[in-house]
Amino acid sequence: MTVATTGEFGLIARITARLGIGPACLLGPGDDAAIVAAPDARVVASTDVLVDGRHFRRDWSSAADIGHRAAAANLADIAAMGAVPTALLVALCVPPDLPVAWAEELADGIAAEAALTGACVVGGDMSASPTLTIAVTALGDLGGRPPITRAGARPGDIVAVVGRIGYAAAGYTVLSRGFRSPKVLVDAHRRPRVPYAAGPDAALLGATAMIDISDGLIADLGHIAAASGVHIDLSRAAFVIPDQMRDAASALGVDPYTWVLAGGDDHTLVATFPPGTELPPQWLPVGTVLAAPALVTVDGKPYTGSAGWDHFPVIGLG
Amino acid sequence: MTVATTGEFGLIARITARLGIGPACLLGPGDDAAIVAAPDARVVASTDVLVDGRHFRRDWSSAADIGHRAAAANLADIAAMGAVPTALLVALCVPPDLPVAWAEELADGIAAEAALTGACVVGGDMSASPTLTIAVTALGDLGGRPPITRAGARPGDIVAVVGRIGYAAAGYTVLSRGFRSPKVLVDAHRRPRVPYAAGPDAALLGATAMIDISDGLIADLGHIAAASGVHIDLSRAAFVIPDQMRDAASALGVDPYTWVLAGGDDHTLVATFPPGTELPPQWLPVGTVLAAPALVTVDGKPYTGSAGWDHFPVIGLG
Repeated sequence: MTVATTGEFGLIARITARLGIGPACLLGPGDDAAIVAAPDARVVASTDVLVDGRHFRRDWSSAADIGHRAAAANLADIAAMGAVPTALLVALCVPPDLPVAWAEELADGIAAEAALTGACVVGGDMSASPTLTIAVTALGDLGGRPPITRAGARPGDIVAVVGRIGYAAAGYTVLSRGFRSPKVLVDAHRRPRVPYAAGPDAALLGATAMIDISDGLIADLGHIAAASGVHIDLSRAAFVIPDQMRDAASALGVDPYTWVLAGGDDHTLVATFPPGTELPPQWLPVGTVLAAPALVTVDGKPYTGSAGWDHFPVIGLG
Repeated sequence: MTVATTGEFGLIARITARLGIGPACLLGPGDDAAIVAAPDARVVASTDVLVDGRHFRRDWSSAADIGHRAAAANLADIAAMGAVPTALLVALCVPPDLPVAWAEELADGIAAEAALTGACVVGGDMSASPTLTIAVTALGDLGGRPPITRAGARPGDIVAVVGRIGYAAAGYTVLSRGFRSPKVLVDAHRRPRVPYAAGPDAALLGATAMIDISDGLIADLGHIAAASGVHIDLSRAAFVIPDQMRDAASALGVDPYTWVLAGGDDHTLVATFPPGTELPPQWLPVGTVLAAPALVTVDGKPYTGSAGWDHFPVIGLG
């Protein structure tokens, strides 16, 4: 059965019936708008869009995987502000020949990823389109804390990352060469494992700036460097390349540091902390913040590998 | 110059530079997420997606028109809850050959429509895609009032509409027959004129249920009838067909009541009010709420014309 059979309202009804309810959901799907608790009296909001063939491939990832990733990309943005996600809204554009089961599995993936953070899907929209497109908006709450923006890094700060880094890019390379293993890398491309709680935790630890790694560590630190007017220097030796990543890199003839330093889509967090901050063990110090000019270096030198990716120049779409 | 020339970040920078700031915008575009004031401690949120060739035609509407309409469709959902819009987030998918000027004009239209309500664009995302797609999320604030849902209509209530009704559908018919006038109808299709303030005003007047007219009056009242478990009976004689609409209907061989009763996309509001409510003159009483079963009738009889539109069955997309 395809979505052309159920029609727009039929598909919405089927998907809505599968969604769970979260504590912040005061009014869920089915009215003109949803109502979400915002106890902080400020709401954190972010939107990301994923396009079929560009941000995901249906032959590489299951519908559930794609749902997890669409949700994670947005929920990570909320965590990167130091906030706790509360709700998602999903605008889904589907080709009429899409199987209903695929759309349902996608919705299950989105809802399951949201549930990891306590958030839930509170609303959305659906339309037919020749191009399968998933636009997700995430909302979150700061719990009375100031937001951690990109603009607060100060000379002397420690740069630290939390979570898996380079895994998603490695998995992408593996898949693009036609392989399906190592599974840990491929799965990391399919479903990023985001340390959501580390976002608010970083705020409590006094983080001065934070961002989620979507474009690549150097590119994303470049956003912090630009917004804060600081020079960020990374120490290549600080990064531990796990055995499976090293083996895959060797087999594929790739420098694994390219994945770690320039690979995106892990949606884990990198933050700056005041000097002397006692970081819990999940945070790995990887560099220091120096005075302007705004730039990012590795061991004091400009990074000469790939520097993250911008959509249009990379892949031409007709 | 096309968006393939500027790239994703270049286009985002150009568009961001054109956006205004609203009073609720605590942190605008440029970080992982935006921060929006939610003084009510609840946030109202709604998402609508518009797809090129399906919800708009670039040969019928200017980029600014399409921006106005994309924003209005979402802002009207916020007003229909009795809330005041505060912010928009926009996920824009653009074909690489799209002129940059078109995207900028679209952004101007979205921002200008938002400004009518005091809201502003606080964030968004952009991607290349073969299909031009605009997904907008609107946020709003209830100002301490209870939300006006679809579920509160009670037998004895008055049904009343505010704003222009049937105009957008009439304009659509005019354009689809290859004409470009009457201008008032064509313009209504291009840019709905939404009485945003009437939403919160209706809440203050004691509205028991409210919805914005996007699928058509009968279809949308059907949502209230279903959610409230009531029978809504419209009085055909209550609707005044304006001269230009009557003339256009006559010239095109269309029953103008089809536009008024079943035409969508006006994004004006219909609400139910307790019996005896003294309605301000902009609200036109058009029917009454009766006891269950849940259905909508016109002069006591089922409506036999077109009953609003569901996307998939109407237009096949390959």
